[in-house]
Amino acid sequence: MAVDLEPSPEVAALAGRTAKFIRDVVIPIEEEHRGVVTSDEVRARLQNAAKEAGVFAPHVSPEFGGHGLGMLGRAAVFEEAGYSLLGPLALNIAAPDEGNMHMLEAIATEDQQERYLRPLASGEVRSCFAMTEPAPGAGSDPGALATTATRVEGGWRIDGRKWFITGADGAGFTICMARTSGEPGEAGGATMFLVDAGNPGMKLVRHLDTLDESLFGGHIELLFDNCVVPEDAVLGEVDQGFRYAQVRLGPARMTHCMRWLGIARRAQDIAVARAADRRLFGSRLGELGMVQQMIADNEIDIAASRGLILQACFELDQQRSASQSTAIAKTFCAEAIWRVVDRSVQICGALGISGDVLLSRFLREVRPFRIYDGPSETHRWAIARRVLRRHDKEAGR
Amino acid sequence: MAVDLEPSPEVAALAGRTAKFIRDVVIPIEEEHRGVVTSDEVRARLQNAAKEAGVFAPHVSPEFGGHGLGMLGRAAVFEEAGYSLLGPLALNIAAPDEGNMHMLEAIATEDQQERYLRPLASGEVRSCFAMTEPAPGAGSDPGALATTATRVEGGWRIDGRKWFITGADGAGFTICMARTSGEPGEAGGATMFLVDAGNPGMKLVRHLDTLDESLFGGHIELLFDNCVVPEDAVLGEVDQGFRYAQVRLGPARMTHCMRWLGIARRAQDIAVARAADRRLFGSRLGELGMVQQMIADNEIDIAASRGLILQACFELDQQRSASQSTAIAKTFCAEAIWRVVDRSVQICGALGISGDVLLSRFLREVRPFRIYDGPSETHRWAIARRVLRRHDKEAGR
Amino acid sequence: MAVDLEPSPEVAALAGRTAKFIRDVVIPIEEEHRGVVTSDEVRARLQNAAKEAGVFAPHVSPEFGGHGLGMLGRAAVFEEAGYSLLGPLALNIAAPDEGNMHMLEAIATEDQQERYLRPLASGEVRSCFAMTEPAPGAGSDPGALATTATRVEGGWRIDGRKWFITGADGAGFTICMARTSGEPGEAGGATMFLVDAGNPGMKLVRHLDTLDESLFGGHIELLFDNCVVPEDAVLGEVDQGFRYAQVRLGPARMTHCMRWLGIARRAQDIAVARAADRRLFGSRLGELGMVQQMIADNEIDIAASRGLILQACFELDQQRSASQSTAIAKTFCAEAIWRVVDRSVQICGALGISGDVLLSRFLREVRPFRIYDGPSETHRWAIARRVLRRHDKEAGR
Amino acid sequence: MAVDLEPSPEVAALAGRTAKFIRDVVIPIEEEHRGVVTSDEVRARLQNAAKEAGVFAPHVSPEFGGHGLGMLGRAAVFEEAGYSLLGPLALNIAAPDEGNMHMLEAIATEDQQERYLRPLASGEVRSCFAMTEPAPGAGSDPGALATTATRVEGGWRIDGRKWFITGADGAGFTICMARTSGEPGEAGGATMFLVDAGNPGMKLVRHLDTLDESLFGGHIELLFDNCVVPEDAVLGEVDQGFRYAQVRLGPARMTHCMRWLGIARRAQDIAVARAADRRLFGSRLGELGMVQQMIADNEIDIAASRGLILQACFELDQQRSASQSTAIAKTFCAEAIWRVVDRSVQICGALGISGDVLLSRFLREVRPFRIYDGPSETHRWAIARRVLRRHDKEAGR
Repeated sequence: MAVDLEPSPEVAALAGRTAKFIRDVVIPIEEEHRGVVTSDEVRARLQNAAKEAGVFAPHVSPEFGGHGLGMLGRAAVFEEAGYSLLGPLALNIAAPDEGNMHMLEAIATEDQQERYLRPLASGEVRSCFAMTEPAPGAGSDPGALATTATRVEGGWRIDGRKWFITGADGAGFTICMARTSGEPGEAGGATMFLVDAGNPGMKLVRHLDTLDESLFGGHIELLFDNCVVPEDAVLGEVDQGFRYAQVRLGPARMTHCMRWLGIARRAQDIAVARAADRRLFGSRLGELGMVQQMIADNEIDIAASRGLILQACFELDQQRSASQSTAIAKTFCAEAIWRVVDRSVQICGALGISGDVLLSRFLREVRPFRIYDGPSETHRWAIARRVLRRHDKEAGR
Repeated sequence: MAVDLEPSPEVAALAGRTAKFIRDVVIPIEEEHRGVVTSDEVRARLQNAAKEAGVFAPHVSPEFGGHGLGMLGRAAVFEEAGYSLLGPLALNIAAPDEGNMHMLEAIATEDQQERYLRPLASGEVRSCFAMTEPAPGAGSDPGALATTATRVEGGWRIDGRKWFITGADGAGFTICMARTSGEPGEAGGATMFLVDAGNPGMKLVRHLDTLDESLFGGHIELLFDNCVVPEDAVLGEVDQGFRYAQVRLGPARMTHCMRWLGIARRAQDIAVARAADRRLFGSRLGELGMVQQMIADNEIDIAASRGLILQACFELDQQRSASQSTAIAKTFCAEAIWRVVDRSVQICGALGISGDVLLSRFLREVRPFRIYDGPSETHRWAIARRVLRRHDKEAGR
Repeated sequence: MAVDLEPSPEVAALAGRTAKFIRDVVIPIEEEHRGVVTSDEVRARLQNAAKEAGVFAPHVSPEFGGHGLGMLGRAAVFEEAGYSLLGPLALNIAAPDEGNMHMLEAIATEDQQERYLRPLASGEVRSCFAMTEPAPGAGSDPGALATTATRVEGGWRIDGRKWFITGADGAGFTICMARTSGEPGEAGGATMFLVDAGNPGMKLVRHLDTLDESLFGGHIELLFDNCVVPEDAVLGEVDQGFRYAQVRLGPARMTHCMRWLGIARRAQDIAVARAADRRLFGSRLGELGMVQQMIADNEIDIAASRGLILQACFELDQQRSASQSTAIAKTFCAEAIWRVVDRSVQICGALGISGDVLLSRFLREVRPFRIYDGPSETHRWAIARRVLRRHDKEAGR
Repeated sequence: MAVDLEPSPEVAALAGRTAKFIRDVVIPIEEEHRGVVTSDEVRARLQNAAKEAGVFAPHVSPEFGGHGLGMLGRAAVFEEAGYSLLGPLALNIAAPDEGNMHMLEAIATEDQQERYLRPLASGEVRSCFAMTEPAPGAGSDPGALATTATRVEGGWRIDGRKWFITGADGAGFTICMARTSGEPGEAGGATMFLVDAGNPGMKLVRHLDTLDESLFGGHIELLFDNCVVPEDAVLGEVDQGFRYAQVRLGPARMTHCMRWLGIARRAQDIAVARAADRRLFGSRLGELGMVQQMIADNEIDIAASRGLILQACFELDQQRSASQSTAIAKTFCAEAIWRVVDRSVQICGALGISGDVLLSRFLREVRPFRIYDGPSETHRWAIARRVLRRHDKEAGR
């Protein structure tokens, strides 16, 4: 036992295969589609190619067809996949499916796993996770959850409005979180429900016209209006939804960071290529001090992000409470990755603003990450609160 | 004579009318079109409304139908117009027409003024300014100008490629800057040419798919290929184009700042309204310290931007060399305005990322301003160089 | 009436004389003393020289021997005086005397003015302002004022502890703020008292060993213990102290900014001289991009600070409520000036850390300005609160 | 083999003992001396206590009386030692002795090790490292080395001026780097020499009056003037000095980071204690959002610094070229640690500026770290250059 920062040879090999697959197969398709794919056919093509390349579903247990990577293994592989906007889709590790698989493996019954997890893990269907609500419902403050589920004959009836439900358009099923006890703002219980596509009580209201556009299936506003589900639609136990949400969100935060870190590296590579080739005022762009500063700061931000992801993943794999380390990593990564992409745009100048490279697309995709999965402000508040509690405890209060 | 920061009553009244016009007339149309208008009919409707409201063409001399404002007067009025993305279009003070009018008033012959300035000032036609070239041509370094104009029988022949030519699609004429002596990278001379729409040697290659989309007529790649123009197409004097470009660019930088400062204020107002109405964790959003910090920093950035614009405009109106003050103001404003919009998005959270408010649109529109009209890095380099020269001079070197 | 950013010829002349005086007379003494003077003899020598140079007491009304400058005039002159750490002492415009003169002119009786203001304005005596208290007393929150004054036969008895009382060691008199009604944390009233040096109830507890050291007379902890003062020691009206404090603090904030802006310019000049002379890796230091960036950012911060000071001073001179503009200016200037000095140190490298130039001294002197006169956080809170109130009012709430 | 971020139990135990020793023994002495000790008696007392506590010389090989920690082990222990300004002195791991021991273990002959390393490792003598020169000599650019060593009968003669020679006052010997071939600015060779105290050709010119004051023995200007040393004073091989300097500097950079990271944690703990206890506007300070933001940002900066140190130390322990990772870690840590201390001062307000807590002392001590061991700008330049070279190589250039 001693500090070791190298992944195992198996993980390293999988990461290497992933990197090659992204460069050879995915990026040409990404550039053809300018980073945004909406066609099921292209999605299937990408996923089949990933299966052939032996890099599909790295995070899923072998029982369900994956490589069974823990969080540290994912850190190595997902970053490589994230090097293209379409990489996560190809490997079936995109949000929200990846987090849903993680949660279904952890808390679904065997029957539910066969019915929902298996086709999800294989890419046969997609899914979504319906938690976030428009104000004044559940957003930064999950306790404001306003959608309700009430017992009815043979099951439950869900009523409420959700928005920013990523991937909902075309999803085979939805995991919906609804309040089953207590009032918004109070303590109380939430429950997760598996709602099949086509349930007449679940209506797609609209696509939100968001800044980011690359997540397959869009960001959707859903209306649950007298949406009745059977008893076995309950995922896990009744009233344990807030706890399950944390099971999902900690790792999901980290996998977001891993994927976006890949994009940060991609942005830096585009900028460095430009800095190497472009001449200005008689020098290579990359010989100008202010450009060097941006390149160096990108390198620093990327390295620091990776270090924080590693720390959090180590704790998650050790089954420790990783709330603090995931919050720290998520907050830093979301801002650092954004800075990297922003600087890369700046290095490329007008080219960076044009559609001729994908940088402005990346800028649009990563900006929301400072808000999605908890705004930086909410995480900072939680980080500080934990520090103060630790102090109070040590001070014997 | 003493320091006075109040505009004259006439200017204040015009600014007030503009503010009212923007709120009552322009913003409803802007929201309907999500900030991006491409229809000539809507443009005409907006401009007619501005004429009725008595706020049209505030910067143009009365002889050509305007209000004859100097730079300080523009500072007051353009900021109000910029409060909506469509305000500058409505008042006929949008880029690049506004800068072109400024330059035509300054250097065009009477005939050229009648033929080009008058219809431009009235809104009858639009124009564009063809200076920027793809690498390795004229960009941050104007001296790299590669497009050439060579004398031919009865006039000139222009050859070269331009890009990021704002408003070129549909423009009635183009002011094209071409090299008439020397080689790219060397000293030498440039000349400005008035090229009528429809000249068979000027071809619209493509619309660049830029991050920003609100400037009417798009950002265009133009090809000048054996483009012949008559002798009287020369604007000003032959070989004086670099000097004229500065005549245009100093004020144009400032009017950009004024307009975008309006958008910064708008973003702040949207964010403040959200902070006032939204409740989170039992408080108004605006009572949370981290949100207050963002609101305060927005207020500071807006005030500091305005102060720097004022200083530069004062010097411009005094006919002093304002290179340093316009570079300082442009650099600061481009970054400060960006920060304001970015923070406003953050304050609004998911809503800020959605299309339900225009913040993410503003984010897309203002980001390029850190690159357009000279990247911040180029301006910083020029600012530092002037400081060092001043030092060398004072030190007797 | 129109915007004009030039000071009057009289003010410009006084500012010019001040600049010359600082360079020729003050800086040699400052460098000899490494920026920190504690000797009354040197203070007298500096002030006599300022009198001879015709630049003494520029802010005091002619009746009391000064030049009668308003806030805008002070902005021009104080910045020049602040170019040396000893300039304000020489001109008798250092904190806290300068603010005390301002307040005494505004609210003292004629007798009090003769007794306290006249010798203060002439430099014969120094003074201090005893408001701040150690926690949990009056600091960022003036309403926490814990020092009390209670009526006794023939006057008042003051009890309480004050700290960070600048200049208290050797001051001829103290203006002490004490609670005369209400409880700490509640609404209620404060009163200002003139306490003569030597009052046996006012004890100098200690010099605080602060980061900054250049303010004459130190930062002192004072104990008021059964400190009895006569009835005519009341400055202004009983229970109006909180209001008077604002009379003093708004302008005092700005004069702080003006003086420190002078130091920022000085730091920049030292750094630029170094960048011009030092060669590194075969170039002048000032030709390296990262150094140019720091020089340019200094220039921008200095210009933006000046613009915000001007705006606030204009409003103060117009007798408008300038709470928002002074808070904005103070917050920005304190941070910008700090950045300028910090960058200047960085440009000079090891030299900047050594005592061979005064930069590290300046760094120590300006850091506290982000805390003195209200920490940036308190000002930001107040700025945001005003913005929200304005919104609420406009929204009809 | 797999990623593991836990130190071995032995290292963890040593780190734990160190933490306890610092808290129980060192901090009381530090507070008594306000962080700055200049007395040999106190130094000896601290070191004896460290020996008794079993935490002395953790980095030295057991042969010379230490614990034989590699870089990763040092990362764990030095951070704990750095929690007090006097901790490194107590453990005999302060700069420059610690780096000198590292280098002497690596390149000295057996005789030299007995004569210089053994007494240095035991704390019997101190040492210094004379590389840096005043402009235009060796500073950010080691190649500008101007001090020369020329062969003389029986040895070498050294001539030149050095400054910022930490610990030189009272050092038992100096490792002096001098040019033995080539000219300043050219390629060529440097050699390291062991110069005994008392050599009449080595003169202590002065103590530099630096911003930081806590390093034992001060920052000294040394003059080598006809300083003759015998042949066996050569450390390692002639003309290999630039290479040896890198042997010393890479690890020395990291141990600086480790130690200062300890101070960052200490600053944060002081600030958190204040935030927990101080009440303002009716809340605990730590419940105010802007304070929470600073606490959270400190936590993030500390965690990110630690992650980068770990990465670099892992590479160093693996004997890989760690130039990039040490440059990244040094640049980030120097700035992050500075931010942490600066924010901690701000959280504590006036208290933070006073001498009643050690924060302003810490601020003075850590500021130079952004310049010492290579200014951030030099490291950023080197980082960017390596990135561009990697690109060029991959692009086949």
